[in-house]
Amino acid sequence: MSSSQLLQQLQSLFPAERVFTDPVDCYAYSYDNSRNFLPPIAVVFPLTAEEVQAVVRLCNEHKIPVVPRGRGTGTAGGSVPEQGGVALSLERMNRILSIDPDNRMAIIEPGVLNQELQDAIRPKGFFWPPDPSSAPYCSVGGNLATCAAGPHAVKYGVARDHVLGLKAVTGSGELIRTGCYTTKGVVGYDLTRLIVGSEGTLAVIVEATLKLTPLPRATGGLTAQFRDTVSCAHAIAAIMAQPFVPSALEFLDNNALNLIRNRHPGMLPEEMRALLMIEVDGSEAEIHEASEAILKACEVDGLIEAKLAHDTESLWAARKALSPLLRDVAPKKINEDVAVPVSRLPELLGGIEALAQRYRIANVNFGHAGNGNIHVNLLVDPGNPDEMERAEACLDEVFSLVLSLDGTLSGEHGVGMAKRPFIPREIDETTIALMKSVKLAFDPSNILNPGKLFP
Amino acid sequence: MSSSQLLQQLQSLFPAERVFTDPVDCYAYSYDNSRNFLPPIAVVFPLTAEEVQAVVRLCNEHKIPVVPRGRGTGTAGGSVPEQGGVALSLERMNRILSIDPDNRMAIIEPGVLNQELQDAIRPKGFFWPPDPSSAPYCSVGGNLATCAAGPHAVKYGVARDHVLGLKAVTGSGELIRTGCYTTKGVVGYDLTRLIVGSEGTLAVIVEATLKLTPLPRATGGLTAQFRDTVSCAHAIAAIMAQPFVPSALEFLDNNALNLIRNRHPGMLPEEMRALLMIEVDGSEAEIHEASEAILKACEVDGLIEAKLAHDTESLWAARKALSPLLRDVAPKKINEDVAVPVSRLPELLGGIEALAQRYRIANVNFGHAGNGNIHVNLLVDPGNPDEMERAEACLDEVFSLVLSLDGTLSGEHGVGMAKRPFIPREIDETTIALMKSVKLAFDPSNILNPGKLFP
Repeated sequence: MSSSQLLQQLQSLFPAERVFTDPVDCYAYSYDNSRNFLPPIAVVFPLTAEEVQAVVRLCNEHKIPVVPRGRGTGTAGGSVPEQGGVALSLERMNRILSIDPDNRMAIIEPGVLNQELQDAIRPKGFFWPPDPSSAPYCSVGGNLATCAAGPHAVKYGVARDHVLGLKAVTGSGELIRTGCYTTKGVVGYDLTRLIVGSEGTLAVIVEATLKLTPLPRATGGLTAQFRDTVSCAHAIAAIMAQPFVPSALEFLDNNALNLIRNRHPGMLPEEMRALLMIEVDGSEAEIHEASEAILKACEVDGLIEAKLAHDTESLWAARKALSPLLRDVAPKKINEDVAVPVSRLPELLGGIEALAQRYRIANVNFGHAGNGNIHVNLLVDPGNPDEMERAEACLDEVFSLVLSLDGTLSGEHGVGMAKRPFIPREIDETTIALMKSVKLAFDPSNILNPGKLFP
Repeated sequence: MSSSQLLQQLQSLFPAERVFTDPVDCYAYSYDNSRNFLPPIAVVFPLTAEEVQAVVRLCNEHKIPVVPRGRGTGTAGGSVPEQGGVALSLERMNRILSIDPDNRMAIIEPGVLNQELQDAIRPKGFFWPPDPSSAPYCSVGGNLATCAAGPHAVKYGVARDHVLGLKAVTGSGELIRTGCYTTKGVVGYDLTRLIVGSEGTLAVIVEATLKLTPLPRATGGLTAQFRDTVSCAHAIAAIMAQPFVPSALEFLDNNALNLIRNRHPGMLPEEMRALLMIEVDGSEAEIHEASEAILKACEVDGLIEAKLAHDTESLWAARKALSPLLRDVAPKKINEDVAVPVSRLPELLGGIEALAQRYRIANVNFGHAGNGNIHVNLLVDPGNPDEMERAEACLDEVFSLVLSLDGTLSGEHGVGMAKRPFIPREIDETTIALMKSVKLAFDPSNILNPGKLFP
C-alpha cells in the first residue's frame, strides 16, 4: 500500500475543493441506504472523463480500490467503500449534454439526477422510464450501474432497456465507447448492457446515450381491495395473463397498509388485507378497454372491491413514502427484493406469511407485483440476538422458497454487499467463474469496487 | 493440427448419421447467404447440451475451430467455417421445451425455426417479435446469435429485447446458465444479452428462455407515395418524431419499386419514386388515432398520396420477396444494412443516390426506415473489374457518410466476414481490444468461430 503517496498525487492533480481526505469530509461518502458504513481514504470529484481516467490510473498504479458513486441511494451497499480506497463521486459531472427529440435520445453525464432528467425532457414530450422511489435524489449514472427499475418497469422495462451507448473508463483507466446512436446496431459485442447493472465493478460510466419514451397521452388509476394476500396474488397473475399490460401494478400487504393507516387514519377500510394500486396509460379509448379487462381479471374469490380511482394521487404518495415509514416501526429492516414469475406469486406470498409466522418475525411486504418483484422487509431489533437469529433463519427459507419457484434473489436492488453470500444458490460455480473472468478483462488489477457483487 | 484424430473421436462419439465428413455431405454446411464458401472438415449434429459440450471439448483439446450454425440464412458470413474445423449444426436440437402463457415465456432449443415458434405460440395469443424475411426457414438460435430484427423492430425491439435467459457452452466446453425466469433480475452480470449478437464467438446457445409478446388486437395498413427519395426521408423523420410508433415502417426506393413493377405490372403508379409501407397495431381506436397522426406526418413537399390501405397483403408479400428478386438483376449484390438516426435519413438517402450516380453503380435501397436501417444493395458484375473497383470506392464513401451521420455499419445483419475490414472505422482500438479480452474470457483457446466479427 502506498496510500499516502496516492493522496499526495491526487492532491496535486485536483484543487482542494475536489479532493476530500479529512475523515469528517469523507463521512458522507462512507455509506449508502444499506446502512453499511466503511470510510474511504479520500473522496475525489472529477469533472471530466479525463479526470476519471487520471484517478483510476493512479489507483491502478498503487493497486488501491476505487469505488464509483452516484448519490448513495442504493440499498445493497454497492457504493460503500468497503475496502477503503478512493470514493469516486460522479455527482459533479451533472450536465445534460444534449436532448434530441427527433431521434428520441438524450446524452447525459452520470451525475444528472433522475428527476432533473425527467424535468428537462417532459416539456419536449418524453420521459425516461426507470423511476425508483429515490428518483428526486438518485443519479442516472447510479440508475445505470444498478439497472434500476421502479413501478413502471412492468410496462416499460428497466434501465438496461433505455440506454443505447456509453462512454466508460475501465479498471486500467482506458476510455471505451460502447453502443451506438441508432435504435438498432449489431457491430461488436453489446458491452453497453453488460456494463449496465454491473454495480461499478467493470467500468466507470462517464457519459450515457439514453433512449427516451414519448409521454403517455393519458393515465388512469384503479384500485382493488382483497380479504387476503393469496387471493390478491391470484388477481395479479390473472391481470398479467391478459393482453393489456398495466403501466404500474403495485401490491401492498396488510402490514404495509397498517403503516399507511397509522399515518393517514380513515384512508383505508379495515377489512382489507391486501391492496393493488394499478395504473394504465395510453389513449382514452385504450385506458377504457384496459381498465375493463383489468377489473374483470380482479374478480377472484376474496375480492372486496375493484374500481376506477379518479384521484389516486394521495394513495401513490403514500405508496412512495412506504420505504421510509418502515424505519418508524423497527430499528432495522432486512430489506429484500426477490422476484418470481407472476404465476408463482400466490405460493410466494402465502409462503412468506407462513414463514414469518413460524419464525415470529414482523414483516411488511409490498412491491412491483406485475414483475413478480416483492420487497420483503423483515423488521428486527439488532439488540435482540434471539430475534436476529430467527430472522436470519426465516430469510434463508424465504430465499429457498424464491429459488424453488424459479425466482431470483434480486429484482432491482442488486447484489452489492448485502446479497453476496446467497449468490451461489442462484448462479452456479461455472457461471460465477466466467463472470469473474469477464471482470478481469475490464479490470485486470481488480481495483474497481472490489469484493462487490461476487460471493 | 490433429484433425484426423479429432474426426475419429467424433465418429466414435456420434452415430454415423450425425457426423458428416464426406465433402459431398459437408457441402451444404460450407456457406450461408453471404455466398462465401469455405468447407468444414466435419459437420456434427448434437442432440443435447452434453453432446455440444463433448464436441467443443474435443475441438478445444485439438485447438481446432468449431463454428456453430443455425440454418445458414445469415448474410454476413457469420456461420461460414472460414478456417475449416467443425461445423456444429444445431438444427436437430429443435424442440420447444415449454410454453408458459401465464408468465409470457417459452423455453426452446436453438434449432427451432422462427416460424415454428410463431405457429406454436399464436394459438395462445402471443408472438415473438423478431421477424427477419427468412423467418420460415431461419432458426431462433441463429436469430439470437445475430440479434436478428426485421420490420417490427421499430415498435417491438430486436432479439436481445426478447430473451430472458440462456444455457450456453463456452469455448472450454463448460455449460453456463445466464439470466433468469422473471421479467426483472439483477443478480450477476448480464451475460444473456452479451451472448446475444455475439455471432457464435463467445458461446454456443443450447437453450433459450424467450419473452413472448401478446398479439396485437388488430392491425391496420397505410401507404404513402412520394415524388422523390429525400421528401420521403423527411416524412419518415416526421412520423418518428410524433408519439404514435408504427408497428412497421418500410421504405422502398424507386429501383426497389421497379423490381416490383417488373414482376407485378400495374400494381404501382409510374410517377412514384419512393414508397412507405406502414403498419399500425393495437385496439381499433388506437389504430384510428395513430393512422390520423401518421397520415398528417406524411404531408411533406413531394407527397403524392398517403392513404389507408385496407388490403396490403400483396404489397407486403412483394416487400418480403425483394431480397431474392435482387438476384435477378445482377450477378452479385453488395448487400449492406447501415443505420442512421432517423432525423439524418434525408442526408443518408440523398447522399447514397448521389454517390451511386457519381460512381455509376446500379443500386436498390429499401429497409426498416423507422429504425433508420436501410438495406443498401450495390448491384455488380464480378466479371467487370472496372465496375467492381467503382463499387468498392462507392461503398467506402457510403460508410464514411453513415459514420459522419452518427450511424452504424450494421443495423441487423452483423459483422461476420463481410464487415470486418470496416469495424475499426466505427469502434476505436481500445474498445476492440477489450472486446477481444472478453472473448478470451469465454473462449480461452479462440476456437469458437475464430476470426469472425473482429477486424
